Amino acid sequence: MHELHPLQIDGLISRSLEEDWGYGDWTTDLCVAKTSIASARIVAKERLLVCGIDVAKAVFAKVDPDLKLETAAESGRTVESGAELLGITGRARSILKGERVALNLFARMCGIATITRQFVEALDGTKAQLLDTRKTTPGLRILEKFATSTGGARNHRFGLCDGVLVKENHIRAAGGISKALERLHESLPPTLKIEVETTNLQEVEEALSAGADIIMLDNMSHETMREAVSLVKGRALLEASGNVKLDTVRGIAECGVDFISTGATIHSARWSDLSLLFEV
Amino acid sequence: MHELHPLQIDGLISRSLEEDWGYGDWTTDLCVAKTSIASARIVAKERLLVCGIDVAKAVFAKVDPDLKLETAAESGRTVESGAELLGITGRARSILKGERVALNLFARMCGIATITRQFVEALDGTKAQLLDTRKTTPGLRILEKFATSTGGARNHRFGLCDGVLVKENHIRAAGGISKALERLHESLPPTLKIEVETTNLQEVEEALSAGADIIMLDNMSHETMREAVSLVKGRALLEASGNVKLDTVRGIAECGVDFISTGATIHSARWSDLSLLFEV
Amino acid sequence: MHELHPLQIDGLISRSLEEDWGYGDWTTDLCVAKTSIASARIVAKERLLVCGIDVAKAVFAKVDPDLKLETAAESGRTVESGAELLGITGRARSILKGERVALNLFARMCGIATITRQFVEALDGTKAQLLDTRKTTPGLRILEKFATSTGGARNHRFGLCDGVLVKENHIRAAGGISKALERLHESLPPTLKIEVETTNLQEVEEALSAGADIIMLDNMSHETMREAVSLVKGRALLEASGNVKLDTVRGIAECGVDFISTGATIHSARWSDLSLLFEV
Amino acid sequence: MHELHPLQIDGLISRSLEEDWGYGDWTTDLCVAKTSIASARIVAKERLLVCGIDVAKAVFAKVDPDLKLETAAESGRTVESGAELLGITGRARSILKGERVALNLFARMCGIATITRQFVEALDGTKAQLLDTRKTTPGLRILEKFATSTGGARNHRFGLCDGVLVKENHIRAAGGISKALERLHESLPPTLKIEVETTNLQEVEEALSAGADIIMLDNMSHETMREAVSLVKGRALLEASGNVKLDTVRGIAECGVDFISTGATIHSARWSDLSLLFEV
Amino acid sequence: MHELHPLQIDGLISRSLEEDWGYGDWTTDLCVAKTSIASARIVAKERLLVCGIDVAKAVFAKVDPDLKLETAAESGRTVESGAELLGITGRARSILKGERVALNLFARMCGIATITRQFVEALDGTKAQLLDTRKTTPGLRILEKFATSTGGARNHRFGLCDGVLVKENHIRAAGGISKALERLHESLPPTLKIEVETTNLQEVEEALSAGADIIMLDNMSHETMREAVSLVKGRALLEASGNVKLDTVRGIAECGVDFISTGATIHSARWSDLSLLFEV
Amino acid sequence: MHELHPLQIDGLISRSLEEDWGYGDWTTDLCVAKTSIASARIVAKERLLVCGIDVAKAVFAKVDPDLKLETAAESGRTVESGAELLGITGRARSILKGERVALNLFARMCGIATITRQFVEALDGTKAQLLDTRKTTPGLRILEKFATSTGGARNHRFGLCDGVLVKENHIRAAGGISKALERLHESLPPTLKIEVETTNLQEVEEALSAGADIIMLDNMSHETMREAVSLVKGRALLEASGNVKLDTVRGIAECGVDFISTGATIHSARWSDLSLLFEV
Repeated sequence: MHELHPLQIDGLISRSLEEDWGYGDWTTDLCVAKTSIASARIVAKERLLVCGIDVAKAVFAKVDPDLKLETAAESGRTVESGAELLGITGRARSILKGERVALNLFARMCGIATITRQFVEALDGTKAQLLDTRKTTPGLRILEKFATSTGGARNHRFGLCDGVLVKENHIRAAGGISKALERLHESLPPTLKIEVETTNLQEVEEALSAGADIIMLDNMSHETMREAVSLVKGRALLEASGNVKLDTVRGIAECGVDFISTGATIHSARWSDLSLLFEV
Repeated sequence: MHELHPLQIDGLISRSLEEDWGYGDWTTDLCVAKTSIASARIVAKERLLVCGIDVAKAVFAKVDPDLKLETAAESGRTVESGAELLGITGRARSILKGERVALNLFARMCGIATITRQFVEALDGTKAQLLDTRKTTPGLRILEKFATSTGGARNHRFGLCDGVLVKENHIRAAGGISKALERLHESLPPTLKIEVETTNLQEVEEALSAGADIIMLDNMSHETMREAVSLVKGRALLEASGNVKLDTVRGIAECGVDFISTGATIHSARWSDLSLLFEV
Repeated sequence: MHELHPLQIDGLISRSLEEDWGYGDWTTDLCVAKTSIASARIVAKERLLVCGIDVAKAVFAKVDPDLKLETAAESGRTVESGAELLGITGRARSILKGERVALNLFARMCGIATITRQFVEALDGTKAQLLDTRKTTPGLRILEKFATSTGGARNHRFGLCDGVLVKENHIRAAGGISKALERLHESLPPTLKIEVETTNLQEVEEALSAGADIIMLDNMSHETMREAVSLVKGRALLEASGNVKLDTVRGIAECGVDFISTGATIHSARWSDLSLLFEV
Repeated sequence: MHELHPLQIDGLISRSLEEDWGYGDWTTDLCVAKTSIASARIVAKERLLVCGIDVAKAVFAKVDPDLKLETAAESGRTVESGAELLGITGRARSILKGERVALNLFARMCGIATITRQFVEALDGTKAQLLDTRKTTPGLRILEKFATSTGGARNHRFGLCDGVLVKENHIRAAGGISKALERLHESLPPTLKIEVETTNLQEVEEALSAGADIIMLDNMSHETMREAVSLVKGRALLEASGNVKLDTVRGIAECGVDFISTGATIHSARWSDLSLLFEV
Repeated sequence: MHELHPLQIDGLISRSLEEDWGYGDWTTDLCVAKTSIASARIVAKERLLVCGIDVAKAVFAKVDPDLKLETAAESGRTVESGAELLGITGRARSILKGERVALNLFARMCGIATITRQFVEALDGTKAQLLDTRKTTPGLRILEKFATSTGGARNHRFGLCDGVLVKENHIRAAGGISKALERLHESLPPTLKIEVETTNLQEVEEALSAGADIIMLDNMSHETMREAVSLVKGRALLEASGNVKLDTVRGIAECGVDFISTGATIHSARWSDLSLLFEV
Repeated sequence: MHELHPLQIDGLISRSLEEDWGYGDWTTDLCVAKTSIASARIVAKERLLVCGIDVAKAVFAKVDPDLKLETAAESGRTVESGAELLGITGRARSILKGERVALNLFARMCGIATITRQFVEALDGTKAQLLDTRKTTPGLRILEKFATSTGGARNHRFGLCDGVLVKENHIRAAGGISKALERLHESLPPTLKIEVETTNLQEVEEALSAGADIIMLDNMSHETMREAVSLVKGRALLEASGNVKLDTVRGIAECGVDFISTGATIHSARWSDLSLLFEV
């Protein structure tokens, strides 16, 4: 699994704290003494897949490098309601000032990882792998894709530069699939594969003969997908896409495709229920 | 309703485009001629409450100030599936490069506004107003609170500086509700109200006599809330909070509280289904 | 008193050092050896109220985390000319490179705190509290308001979002005080109070009956202010404003208002006289 | 006079508006209709030297590029109380949102320019020119030095990189004036002059013979300064410094020095009294 | 060829102007009247391949949006010494303030494109394409890769995220080529190809059977490269690398490889000789 | 020699890592275990002058503060091919992620310093000092000028604010050399010297009598330069400029000028050949 390097989230965390604090935290500064020390722990309030502990830790460390942070759960593991995830000890003010940003990021990451795992489990035993998409919350893509990956999905490209996906509009503008791929084969960095979106078998054939590395089967029926699989015979990777749901995903996989992509694990995820509890 | 000033979203839009583009858009640059012109429209693929058109427009204007943008729906209105929301005409490359970021922001805002409206409609005829919380996606708070407001909710504080919310941990650290409020009354900017979180009637009384402007009734039973309403008799505003759902919100309102707050309209909202269609 | 969190001043300090250094410090780099060690102390050259030591320390720590910094005076205390405020030991180059920015910020903060204390002392024994305003140096508001607070004033709102102040122009645009307050009562975050600026008793009455939380008495005579106090009878807070000076402030307070606001402690403050002395 | 290029103040203006707005301007957004149009003018409420109109205009243009801005006074001119300085027409909301930041910057610049002019007038007929220093508000140096220049002073170096000023501590660290200047003559960019701070005539002689371009006479008596002038005989420029006040500055000039430097025009300036008036 | 979008170079241009201006341009501001108008043109002082005109234009447009800019040469074309490349008309101050930054970027881009074209011409008639590398000037990668592309090279990956290159150290850490590729095939975004660096034929075979898409032949003799070509028989792309020079590049190509990569077109390019001439 | 303060390169290093990483380093993250430890050293692959070790160290420290960094060569010294320059021990991932940025900066700095030293050696025994210019890579000026300085050159001004250079266009716009210098003598910060570009002896005389501190002899013949030297007789510094090459620089120096300036040590430098070797 891909590493989330501290430098890659530092800016987001600073901006998030700024956003949450504005001119400062009146409640805490006026009610809690500067020297007051406390212990707190973040616990799961429901069954969830743990993801984002390091992000939560980075938030608290940014607020106060002196806070003692103890990881209490393993990333990528499912825990039950009540499980402790992270322990925090130090200045009470610092814990209170970091709480909301840490929880907002952490809960979103767990939520995405948890639903992703459900999709992945539905694919168990098939050869299909789940992929994510570029339908992510602006500013959080790297975290959200880290979460789908933690949940067991494989990442599709992160942006417009690390993969090619020739869609209908590109095809039309280029004057057909073969023309589009001709230009790409000529100038594209050779480190990138070419994926083509198709909506019927004729386009699948055209994409295949034009040298597509991956062919996306967009919103096709099971029957058509099965035919596509027979037709392509492994000469290109096949990715099914469109209206993928928890109760339909396995059926799609059984058509024999290599990948199934969905944005739902991100755009339809709700946050996991986490809580920060102060210890007496 | 609060205005979303262009300066307040400019940085977010720049960062979002950077995030989506990385080193650049190979597919578009290699398949679509620089001079190619196109028309596109963003349409609703399901019933939704329109919110965020100006944000989508700002994304496209940032990508290419020469794009012609035509608002086709009114913010705050519910439209049916198929309704056109925004028309875009100009360089095909620019439309394709702005598409994903524009849709990601727009769909999230519509999604939040739409579910908020459902909560608000459930309150119809009661005196209670729906409030949002600080459980928002880091980096997007201003947009997400704009969306709950468009959906008919009233905004609670945006951060730690524009309102005081004395929670259990603050109370404990201060040595009780009265001590906490004493310090706040002494030093707080007089432009801010003081809200106190309570979990039983005794705390409600204590908060009231200590001079709280707003009393949050946290996770109380209907019966307790009704008693709190009788007890307080309008001397403070009452906000119900905790486990608020679409099918329970009206019952809570009927207890007579002034506000009901929930983070669910944000943390459990899924994106609305939007699509950008190129015109032939 | 409100805490100045290191994250809130970090950006300002970086920008200030950049501003002062430009391409670098030729004098120091060419005259002082890299390994040269020195001790210095910042001393008061006149009687002043200490404010901003932590800011000065943050400047030096930014320039060189290895500098040893020793606080020699207590924030909020008045010291006499000659008093040592801060000791600094370490690389001579680092001390010289941080000196000007540290002193510029520190001297400004002491200057504001010192004059604020004079106003506050003039109010001694009355019930009125001194407030500051939004007339602050752009970029330094949080520091300058920290300084007035250290001097004994109470902060008024920090910006446009953490309080409402309905001025003449707002009233006119809204079509009168009651119309303006109606809209505010409907949509404003309930955590914010509403203040209305008035210039005569009729407006005071109108503001009161429209539900203002705070009524500003702008440039009124002592007599009118006294009448306003009788009229309002504690049903709203009263803030006197306009042409407040050290020799008039007590007279205003004796009219019975709750607050007196002035920008003079900031826009008319001169810097305190501080000096950084190298030790032999 | 040095030009203040728009790129040089753009960042400051953005940050200042962010600082003033926070999450947004509730009062204006809720009281003033989006379409409401207004006219306003900034007027002098006291005699002052005009400085900073372009900065005020840049603030309003940033808030709303559609505002019509009309310069009504000439930069560098003294105007009487009541004089109109800038006219603004357009969206009422935009005027209200830009008002405070525009006035804060504009009033500070006029205040500095006005007091500087008084010092400069006191030097009338002497050969001495007034210089400013690096005692400026962090973040505003370029504006504040523009203001002293508008008031008739000549700018001293803007930072540590555009001039050399060898002070006592540098001299001690280098092991004497001649050693310090030897190193500087060897390695300094040849485009920079070397100034040396002296406190007595012996040091003046040492600096002169070591090849100083400018010699600062720090806190010397009139008599000593006159001797320094005779001694140096134009072979170096002489700058008097230390405790320069409006009523002492002419006496210093009459000692025959080339320059008199003071930070007082900045650190002891109060803001000019400006007001933004809405037109009926 | 890949487009250089204005948003992608805007930050670099701002920072470059800041770097060049520092506190401002004394020479121009004091010698040239604000209203003075001039015409200038940038001309080639030697034979060169034109690249970067749009970047130079963006610099001048940033300095002054009112400058009239006329492209006088075509990007990607070779011009002779004396050829005009860009015409600029408007405020003389603006031209002088933008000159150095515009020329520095433009000259570097022409220099890289020009030498790249020489390498590309040396490959004429062979099937090999020239590739660039990640040996680029930090901060300018996108411009420098645009320049190699303009010169006729094909871009290799832009960074660590848009392609995989398994080098000796990765192989060793993974425990061999097959283990490394196994992990990559499992988790890598399917849009990315896998390239493996090899130093002998055994490694070539191993890479091939492990499923490498591209095999880099690092510093191999002509003979070995020819054997590698026969061995691989088109089942993977072959990229020759190491010590590629203008006089050796064709010999390498004739071994039958698909790509030849070199950093020399960037790290050993000198700037083209350009001059900005004012017109009388 | 001027110090390169960590704060002055921190932003560049962050941006450079971002540029190189994009969304992350797939190869390393998938092939190298998180816990894998390694040792590496950067070695010279050719004879070179060491410059930039601290910059390389700052890159690695930014990637991972736990890396152990050991300087193995002295800045400013010439080393032979094979010499070790820097040792790095710690997480293998961190070394691999910092490698390219560290080498790109380090190799560029050595390259510039090395060629500069050749020019400087060619001047050995003459009184002339080598100067650099503002022809530097945008964004890297401070590093590149540090490198010329390490190579033995003296820095000319770093930007437009720390020196005055009156060129032909300024002269024409001002209406002649004397008019230009008159204005400069009146308003320029007295800490800056005035340099005037001249192309013939008449202009040299004019510049001299107008009070130029430095006179640039632009593209003059040896004979003319010698005449200029006799004419000026030390009353101004003389800087030869234009088409300075390694084999012509000594001849120019022997004309008796004080300085010879060239951009070639930067715009025509190629990178030194460095390599990062992992240890077994």
